[in-house]
Parts: sequence; C-alpha cells; structure tokens
Amino acid sequence: METPAKNELQGNSKETPFDKTVRGYIEMLISNIDHSQIDAKPMIPLGHGDPSSFSSFRPSPVLEDAVMKSIRSEKFNGYAHTSGIASARRAVGDYLSRDLPHSLSLSPEDIYITCGCNHAIQILVSVLSFPGANILLPTPGYPHYEVNCDSAGIAVRHYNLLPEKGWEIDLDSVEAEADENTVAIVVINPGNPCGTVFSSHHLLQIAETADKLGILVIADEVYHGLAFGNNPFVSMGVYSPIVPILTLGSLSKKWLVPGYRLGWIAVNDPKGILKKKKFTHNIAKYMSISANPATFIQASVSEIIEKTEEEFFNKTILTLRDCAQLCYTYLQEIDCITCPHKSDGSMFAMVKLNFSRLADISDDTDFCCKLAKEESVIILPGTAVGLSDWLRITFAVDLASLQDGLIKLKNFCRSHRKISGNQTDEDSYNP
Amino acid sequence: METPAKNELQGNSKETPFDKTVRGYIEMLISNIDHSQIDAKPMIPLGHGDPSSFSSFRPSPVLEDAVMKSIRSEKFNGYAHTSGIASARRAVGDYLSRDLPHSLSLSPEDIYITCGCNHAIQILVSVLSFPGANILLPTPGYPHYEVNCDSAGIAVRHYNLLPEKGWEIDLDSVEAEADENTVAIVVINPGNPCGTVFSSHHLLQIAETADKLGILVIADEVYHGLAFGNNPFVSMGVYSPIVPILTLGSLSKKWLVPGYRLGWIAVNDPKGILKKKKFTHNIAKYMSISANPATFIQASVSEIIEKTEEEFFNKTILTLRDCAQLCYTYLQEIDCITCPHKSDGSMFAMVKLNFSRLADISDDTDFCCKLAKEESVIILPGTAVGLSDWLRITFAVDLASLQDGLIKLKNFCRSHRKISGNQTDEDSYNP
Repeated sequence: METPAKNELQGNSKETPFDKTVRGYIEMLISNIDHSQIDAKPMIPLGHGDPSSFSSFRPSPVLEDAVMKSIRSEKFNGYAHTSGIASARRAVGDYLSRDLPHSLSLSPEDIYITCGCNHAIQILVSVLSFPGANILLPTPGYPHYEVNCDSAGIAVRHYNLLPEKGWEIDLDSVEAEADENTVAIVVINPGNPCGTVFSSHHLLQIAETADKLGILVIADEVYHGLAFGNNPFVSMGVYSPIVPILTLGSLSKKWLVPGYRLGWIAVNDPKGILKKKKFTHNIAKYMSISANPATFIQASVSEIIEKTEEEFFNKTILTLRDCAQLCYTYLQEIDCITCPHKSDGSMFAMVKLNFSRLADISDDTDFCCKLAKEESVIILPGTAVGLSDWLRITFAVDLASLQDGLIKLKNFCRSHRKISGNQTDEDSYNP
Repeated sequence: METPAKNELQGNSKETPFDKTVRGYIEMLISNIDHSQIDAKPMIPLGHGDPSSFSSFRPSPVLEDAVMKSIRSEKFNGYAHTSGIASARRAVGDYLSRDLPHSLSLSPEDIYITCGCNHAIQILVSVLSFPGANILLPTPGYPHYEVNCDSAGIAVRHYNLLPEKGWEIDLDSVEAEADENTVAIVVINPGNPCGTVFSSHHLLQIAETADKLGILVIADEVYHGLAFGNNPFVSMGVYSPIVPILTLGSLSKKWLVPGYRLGWIAVNDPKGILKKKKFTHNIAKYMSISANPATFIQASVSEIIEKTEEEFFNKTILTLRDCAQLCYTYLQEIDCITCPHKSDGSMFAMVKLNFSRLADISDDTDFCCKLAKEESVIILPGTAVGLSDWLRITFAVDLASLQDGLIKLKNFCRSHRKISGNQTDEDSYNP
C-alpha cells in the first residue's frame, strides 16, 4: 500500500496584517530606549492613552468597592448572557440616555457589553463585513479600525480631518470616497488623535451627510465627556432620528480603568432600521462566539455608574485641561513643531514636524525612534495614525512628567536642528 | 445635478451562522418552560457545564482573596500586554509543566492568556484558517468549534467517537477524513460531551496518527484533571515530541469560576515547528486586535494557582464521581434510554434515546422541548453536539437536584412511552 503524502502543518503561515496597532508601535519604540541611561533618564510615556499609572489619574474608590462587593456576593461566578448581564445593560442605557432627549432613551436591549472598546470595534467590523464592502475612516484616525478591517476583509477608504478647521471632518472628501458598497462612517469624538470636540452643528452635518449617502454612523465616544474647550460634548446619538448610530464607549477613559476591559455598543436606532436589517441580531450572534468581560465586573457596572460622583469627572477634566494648556504652551516654543489646534478634548494633540528645520531625521518614525533612544521619551509617530510627518502627543500624564517630557522633546529638536548661516547655537532650553 | 443613488444600509444582512451554541440551545429550551408551574416545578438545569450556582460547587476562598488583593494594589488598572501579563503566563506555564516531563517544560512565552476557553477556540480557528483549509472535529463534540469554523470560513470534517469503545476516537475515520488541506484535529479530553478520559496509550495513538497525517493537535483540556474513573488524566502535551500540540485550558471548570473568563492557549512545540511556521506569531498578532481579560484578574492568576489546595480539587472530583454514579444508576432504570458508558471525567454523560419505546416524540430536540415544558428539566439534545437521537446530560449539580431531575426524566419517559399489548401501566417511579 502506498504511504499517503504527509501534510506540512499548513495554515495561514504568512504574517497576519495586524502589526500596526498603537501598542505595536509603542512596543517598537520602547525597544529603542537606551537602557544604559534609564536611571538618569527614566521613560516618559507620551505615547498611549493610559494614564492609570499616574497619581493624578487614579480611579474613584467607588470602583474597587463595587467590584469587591460583586465578587464577595458569590452570585457572579457563572457564565453571563453573551450580550451582557441585564443590570449592566440597563445601567449603561440609562447613563447614555442622560445625553439624549427623552424620546430617544435607550433600553437595556439597545446595549451590548464588550471587553472594552477595541473589542466593540472588532465586533462591529466583523458584523458589517460582506464581500466588496467598504467603510469610511478618518485620517488621521485610530489604527485599530484599520487592522480589524484588514482582518475581517472589509475595504478601508479614508476621509480627511482638516487641521485648519480645528480638525473638523472634510465632508466633501466623505462624499467623494463613498460609493454603493459603503456601509458606515466612523466618527471619533472627542477626537483621537486630534483632541478636538465637534460642535453640535458639525455633528448634525455629519448625520445629514451619512443619511444622504445611506450609510450608518459608528460614533466612537470612548473619550465621552472628556471635553474642556468651547464646545460641550454632545452625543452623536442625538441625531439618530436622521440616521442610525452605533455608539461605542467604555469605562476605560472616563473612569480611568482601561485594565477593566469593560466597554459597550449602544444601538441608537429609533426607527428600528438596524433591527429590521438584522444588524442587531448579528451583533448578538457574533458576541455568542466571541469573548465576554468577567461576570462579576459586569455586575459591578451599575454601582460604578450610579455612585461615581460628578466631582471625580470634574477633577479629571480640569487636570486634562491644565495638561493640554501646558502642552500647547511648550510646543509653541519648539521651532520645528507646529500645533495647529489646541486640544479641547480627549488626551491627545496632533502636531506637525517641519523637516526643513531638522537635520539627520528621515521621517516621523525615525524622529520617534531617535527621541526614544536619546531622551527615553515615547511619542507616537503620525504614521501610526495615518499622517506621516506628524506626531501624536499624549498629554494625559502627571504635569511634572509632561513638563519634563516636553523639555526633553525641545532639547532633542535643538540638538537635531538644521543650522543655517545666520543662526547661533543657543543653550538647551531649561526654564 | 443628479441626486446620487442612496445606499440602503447594506451589510451582512442575512443571519450569521452562529445560532447553534450550547447556550443558544439552552436559551431556546428555557423559553419552553411552563412558567405557570415554575413554583411547583422549579427549573433543574442539567443542560450546561456551569455548576457555579450550586453549593457543592463553590470556588475556593483563595480566588476571592487573590482578586481583591490584586485590585486593592491599584497596580493593575492599566492595559496589559495583549498576550497576557508575564506573571499569569509564567504561573500557567509552571502549572501545566507539572503534567509534563522536565524536558518539555513550558516557558511563559509558550502561554497566551485568553478570555476563557471559548475565546481561545476563536483565536486558534481564526489563525489556522486559509482558503480551502479544513479541520477535524469529533462527533459528538462541542458546538463552539463548528460555529467558529463557520465564521472564520474554515471547512469542518467530522471523525467519530465510538460509544462501544468507551467513546475512544475512531482513528480510521480520522485518516479517512483528512486530506492535504487538513490543518488540525481537535481532541477534547476529558470528554465533552461523552465524559470519557482517554488512556495514555490512546493519546499516543492519536499523536502518531496526527504525525502521520502532518496535522497539529488542538488538545481541549478545559476539563483538565476532572477524572474519576480508571484512567488517570494525562496531558496531551506529553506527546509533543511526536507532533505539535496546542493545549486549551481555563480556570472555568477546575476552579469552578466560568464567570471569570480566564483561559489560555499553551504551545507544546519542543521542536519549534509552530514558531518557524509563524503560527505563534500569528496567535500574538490576532490577540493584539481581539479581547483581553481584565488586567487585575490576570494579576491574580499566579496566587490562585499557587494557593488553591489539592484538597479543593479532590473534593470536586469526589463530588463529580458521586454525581456520575448516581446519574448512571438512575439512567439504568429508564426504559427508553441507554447509557453505553459510565462517565469517568468532565461533567457530562451521553445517552441514547430508543424511539421504539416512545410515543408522540419526533426527535431528540422535541424530547428536550417537551421535557422542559412538562417537567422544567433542561437537558441538551444530542443534535446540539452533532448526534441526533441522543442526549447530553450534565450531572454537575447538587445531588438532590440531580436525583430530582432524573426522577422527573423517568416520569416523563413513562408518560410518553409507547404502550404495547403485553405491558401494564405502572405507577410513576418514586423511590
């Protein structure tokens, strides 16, 4: 008898396309740090939106109490409903309804509890995918959308945010990119990476554009309420009578616990269009084969939402406002960096590099690698968020660390500046 | 100017194929319960592997203490590495290495921390998928594999478990089903749904067959160590020198906390074949866009594993043994049910319905729907696990509930029996 040919442990043995997440870039940058000088120059993390290690961004004690009460009850050791436990869905629905007119209030069935907002993105992109489909993402944006679209096989089309208009959406570019296979537009507000907060007028324009194109809106509101400029935060869900809105949120940023991995999808669909089209059914079905947050954490959500006081959020917002102001002030003094818009929301600022004033730096990624190596300062290259020659700076750290990081950034820029004939070599900046 | 045609909120608007999970079936059965009699006949859940609501299956207090310590430390509010935090990976690797010869010990890098075992299945199926690929699953099996394969676009081929051989794998059917596009065989041991524990000799045969076919083994050991018959539990990883093994496990069953959603993938690959083929790289990359367990739960894993005493596991195993024995004894007395093998592991027994002795029941699903409606007893129809005309009975409940449920099952069978000429109508069984 002939011996059958043996397989060679096949599989998708080419590299999967999920390299370019924020965390992927940051791990790469950290690997560039010169560990021989780490005691003299400890790492200053201005790269990612996780301020939880800084004392000025500690969560409220309400969270610890709520989780401990939940685990001590011994009622939540078992599996939860895969769309989330009822009390968490109700609490999130009630919470989000505070931003909405009464007629648009969300019921528990409109809420799906996810393992953080990144998981919510994975769920929605998977559910929206069909052969030939495409989705509209902002440039600059949040790279998790791109890697999930790659993985789910849904094509990406980019529309522009306009720095000269406070990073508002270029609605002409939205209309130009959309076609008959476009399923949705992703709108991130408050903005990551641009730190912008859209006016209610602009949100209305976005909703009207989406309605005109016949596409739904994915409203990424993970920085919900973190607004400290002229525009108050307005939930996109307000405009759901115009077009269906899928709102993403989480405890991660506003409650300062990204490690809890507790997020949600809220279906703002007063006309029942998404239900009729089976989108909501498919969200529930996808969740039945995907991951869920721990049941006892879900069980603590209602108490976390009810008991966290406004004072806690106000303190965070004031701290972020001070950080954004300090960041903007220091950046004004750096020659080769332009900040077109002072951030009025989220935890980030986008700034442009002027390469005509820099020697021996090839691009934004090179800039960030050398900055990590020479100054142990981590800043995300704009390439990671879709805009080369820019940087995304996280200002959500302790003020002292932020100041230290920005001084080191300035010194780095000086030491790499292009010296022309009529310039003198000043000392390092040290206020 | 012409008005552009408006899209119609497209998307994957046909129903996704994820209906038939265990939880999906159980929710359907529960909807059949007659709520007018629920006080007289409270629900007896013999359908799913989650005994956490029963007093005889309470977790060790070690778990609550470890989680509270972790959350109180305030060190774990931030994001974790997407493959899992180092201490959890090390603790799980050390724990699994206890079952392995020293030369096959697992390092932290061999372990990936997932949101429970179902999430681990989703990750592996996604990573192994390529156009045309197929995977070998047992019949009967665990339906989560099928729904994930459907979702990832990987074809399923079924091999048989043999009831007359204590549910061992029919290795001839494995060889008959495999072809050049087969990537892996899934082996569930201790067995769900069959309650079997494979001998080390049989595990060796499986490894040799997989090696002969050039496919890897996914060893689903979520019921790790829950063995109470003649065969001791042996980890498939012991045979990794023959063929690469991807072992799945979790805290869910052995520590009795399915609600914690804390599982793992262990890569048993002493020859580095999976690393070379980039499987491990692709697992890490997929995890970077998928979900993670809460950081503070991950941080409690090392203490949970170190401090849970053998006595706790021994008590669970003795309880399960008593339950399995009681289940087997009672089933012997039911005319229309045959139990070919007394369970010696996991939490389940597979039993066959004899329709020649049943009137007015069309199939196993009809049997379970009517049983839910008339007796408020939930049992999983065999169709859910790939074997129609069978039932999967969970015996992991309090003994009193189990006895009550089995008596009601017997009464139900009597009231639906086919009466032939020479039979008398006995009273209901009530010992």
